[in-house]
Amino acid sequence: MSEDTLFAKMASGEIPSDEVYSDEEYYAFRDINPQAPTHVLIIPRKPIPKISDAEDGDRALLGGLVLKATEIARREGLEDDGYRLVINCGKQGGQTVYHLHLHILGGRQMNWPPG
Amino acid sequence: MSEDTLFAKMASGEIPSDEVYSDEEYYAFRDINPQAPTHVLIIPRKPIPKISDAEDGDRALLGGLVLKATEIARREGLEDDGYRLVINCGKQGGQTVYHLHLHILGGRQMNWPPG
Repeated sequence: MSEDTLFAKMASGEIPSDEVYSDEEYYAFRDINPQAPTHVLIIPRKPIPKISDAEDGDRALLGGLVLKATEIARREGLEDDGYRLVINCGKQGGQTVYHLHLHILGGRQMNWPPG
Repeated sequence: MSEDTLFAKMASGEIPSDEVYSDEEYYAFRDINPQAPTHVLIIPRKPIPKISDAEDGDRALLGGLVLKATEIARREGLEDDGYRLVINCGKQGGQTVYHLHLHILGGRQMNWPPG
């Protein structure tokens, strides 16, 4: 068995986190080092390390991840003003935890370039 | 009929673009104002204005969009070092063209915060 990542432990409740959303497929929580007034991470419970590891069979899971992110953004009151969705892949992408996660950032004007 | 966006006109060939990938569902091209050594945009041909406009029926389309982005990143030689995927939604997200598009950025270290 592979060792659970920090995020998998948050999703299972083994490590505390500031939960925003939870269901059988996804778990969302607030970033502990927020980069915007609203900064939520959403992960699939399935432990895909990097987005580049996703396979054709993950298509519905990934589509659901993006749709769930829009639903969370709506609940967080970000829809009218807008927001940014970000997935970091690997070192140059800035990925630090190797459990696929999507960042939802809003509540301020996001700048360009995106990092 | 709604007027086609700049990106829809690129996908149809009405306006020239630097094509990277094309199939029945998706079209990808190089950003005219690149923010990294590799900066590609991928769009669904279906004209969804914003990611917040996507509906449950778009789940497979969105999952395919993300998977296709990983495939393009692989072809562009970004997979080993890593890359960043970004979707801007609305004004504060920094969206400038209202045809859903996903940015693929790589070839340099991406910074934090993501804009």
